[in-house]
Amino acid sequence: MKAKLPSMRRVAVIGVGMSPFIKQTQRTLAELGVEACHAAIKDSGISPKDVGVLYCANVHTDAGFLHQDCLGEDIASRVGVANCEITNVENACSGGSTAVRRTWYDIGMGMYDVGIALGVDSMTRAIKKGTLLSRGLDDIDASLGMTMPTFAALVMRRHMAQYGSTPEQFAKVSVKNHRNGALNPYAQYQKEFTVEEVLNSRMVCDPLTLYMICPYSDGAAAIVLCAADKVAQYTTHPVWMAGSSLKSADYFQNEKNLVASGMGERASAEAYEMAGLGPKDLDLVELHDAFASTEIANIEDLGLCPRGEGGILTQEGATEIGGRIPVNPSGGLLAQGHPLSASGVRQICEITWHLRGQAGKRQVQGAKVGLAHMEGGMVAGLQSGVCGINIVTL
Amino acid sequence: MKAKLPSMRRVAVIGVGMSPFIKQTQRTLAELGVEACHAAIKDSGISPKDVGVLYCANVHTDAGFLHQDCLGEDIASRVGVANCEITNVENACSGGSTAVRRTWYDIGMGMYDVGIALGVDSMTRAIKKGTLLSRGLDDIDASLGMTMPTFAALVMRRHMAQYGSTPEQFAKVSVKNHRNGALNPYAQYQKEFTVEEVLNSRMVCDPLTLYMICPYSDGAAAIVLCAADKVAQYTTHPVWMAGSSLKSADYFQNEKNLVASGMGERASAEAYEMAGLGPKDLDLVELHDAFASTEIANIEDLGLCPRGEGGILTQEGATEIGGRIPVNPSGGLLAQGHPLSASGVRQICEITWHLRGQAGKRQVQGAKVGLAHMEGGMVAGLQSGVCGINIVTL
Repeated sequence: MKAKLPSMRRVAVIGVGMSPFIKQTQRTLAELGVEACHAAIKDSGISPKDVGVLYCANVHTDAGFLHQDCLGEDIASRVGVANCEITNVENACSGGSTAVRRTWYDIGMGMYDVGIALGVDSMTRAIKKGTLLSRGLDDIDASLGMTMPTFAALVMRRHMAQYGSTPEQFAKVSVKNHRNGALNPYAQYQKEFTVEEVLNSRMVCDPLTLYMICPYSDGAAAIVLCAADKVAQYTTHPVWMAGSSLKSADYFQNEKNLVASGMGERASAEAYEMAGLGPKDLDLVELHDAFASTEIANIEDLGLCPRGEGGILTQEGATEIGGRIPVNPSGGLLAQGHPLSASGVRQICEITWHLRGQAGKRQVQGAKVGLAHMEGGMVAGLQSGVCGINIVTL
Repeated sequence: MKAKLPSMRRVAVIGVGMSPFIKQTQRTLAELGVEACHAAIKDSGISPKDVGVLYCANVHTDAGFLHQDCLGEDIASRVGVANCEITNVENACSGGSTAVRRTWYDIGMGMYDVGIALGVDSMTRAIKKGTLLSRGLDDIDASLGMTMPTFAALVMRRHMAQYGSTPEQFAKVSVKNHRNGALNPYAQYQKEFTVEEVLNSRMVCDPLTLYMICPYSDGAAAIVLCAADKVAQYTTHPVWMAGSSLKSADYFQNEKNLVASGMGERASAEAYEMAGLGPKDLDLVELHDAFASTEIANIEDLGLCPRGEGGILTQEGATEIGGRIPVNPSGGLLAQGHPLSASGVRQICEITWHLRGQAGKRQVQGAKVGLAHMEGGMVAGLQSGVCGINIVTL
């Protein structure tokens, strides 16, 4: 890709909104999406009729085609924005990042002036007990036991062996994120844990314990994006999309090793170049911490510290609110919750609140630049994955 | 939307390929997609490493997230194009049209030079007997019996009442499309029927009979798109994307009536304007004929004849191969088959073959301009829908 296309307009985030991320199995996907869209539209000051394009990210349709295809069109019709261009996207954990990127792109290219990026998923509806272990019918690796928690446990074990990181350092990721979550009224878990409590919680996939793994969550998040030349009509406090990238990879064929994601490195390099910024310019990062081990690995993919030093960075407190580079001030997926496709959009809500100075008790003081990172979809036996990154600035 | 963006490059279709559209429940979605991608890549002359972007349209994941999310990433890794930007899209019947549009757009805007648009679905895997009647949990209309065949039957009855069209005219749609399908080696049904056989086939949803309804199909289609300035590296017989549109609508709130789709009219108007062409310039049309009644309605939405005269146009033979404006020379969804997300891509394969003079016994002689139309997703109680149109020229 050309890192920066000369004809692009600047695009602002002018409205953000979300539903709570909790277990709410009784609510439909449409209900969750409508709640998030209403909140984002209200926050933005737009009228629904102004919306030219909408992307809806979703993995967990209520039961496949027969129960809920065209989820975006359905939600759009319920919030009065049906007469626009609507596309449903799915990219596993990176679906929300994809919706943000695509809405930004259409507006930046001049196709539309105002758009909505929406993400919604319901894990409690989609996941039947035990089925987390099953994957595609032709998926040998999963049949042999290579599931998401297994993979994350291997990442942790490999990081410990290769770089000398310790279980306590991984536990500190959970401690930090739950401490942040306790300050976030939108978080699924608002309770602090000690390192000992994390290490002594139930062993799920050695060495990963229960409190190092994100919960099942149901929820939605939405943002309103707007072309620079139209922003003044709606808001006096825009924040700006500064860089974006989406990279896929054939994991086992092309990645370097378990603890370094080549697609994460490539995506962050492209997004940094587009934004004209580097890791040192970031004031906060929201990244994919479905497991404590992936936070450590992703910190390194993003260049927040040298490879192998993510555990030390965490131990030293540099990733805490008030530290050198706060990571997951929201509480991250571990405490905030993780309705897959919603998370990449929810991260932009969180960063926007910090950049506006509206993040309450978890406010990163003086934040001017935030990066949102999601990675996942290492499905079909972890063969293939996708990483989405969006950078937002004041 | 701005109908034509001044900074866009021309984009060519340089390769097309598909799997058979038949009942092949034993094959996975990935296998079907790989077959189509291999065929399109071979036809195009590109190397897999040239691919910068891939869109994969799919509704029927093998069983929701747990069995096959990131289908596009999975297929891409199996054909050697994993290290690019991949997005899975879903827009019901218009999913394939969406994948084509989005690949065209990214290349046209200069983001990438070569891309693949892929559509794949398996209806026999997704649809359990009887479940076609069920929709979203909060879907009142479907619970009351408003399903796709019911809707199509209402369209047919309303068209007959409003314009005096006859059951024989609708039956002639099926007769024509099955006659075309009999000439198409890729068609699911390669057998001719008479008007009497169509009218006397089993009554499904009065006045719609079984042979007026498309079959359950499993299959995939793929095309390779390329920026104008790179085409000469790969092929001497490109065809060109000339216009594209994707429009959604809140059906019951905004559409005029059952037989005229406002989103179909708006999408075709926009695509015609972008191409600088009108209905009279078309040499062939591939359109959404999941039901014989929708072919008649869609003929009118596209302006191939005045509103209400679609039945007469069909009766007169104008839509046959060799007629004034051949419609569905492939056999359409009725005979070709309809694996939902594959169809909008398959239509571009068909039009490309005609424009190259490679359509065999069903060749539309001297064809220079073709239009592909898909409409669907009138789900969640038919509240919301989406129409995708792409125009291709020599």
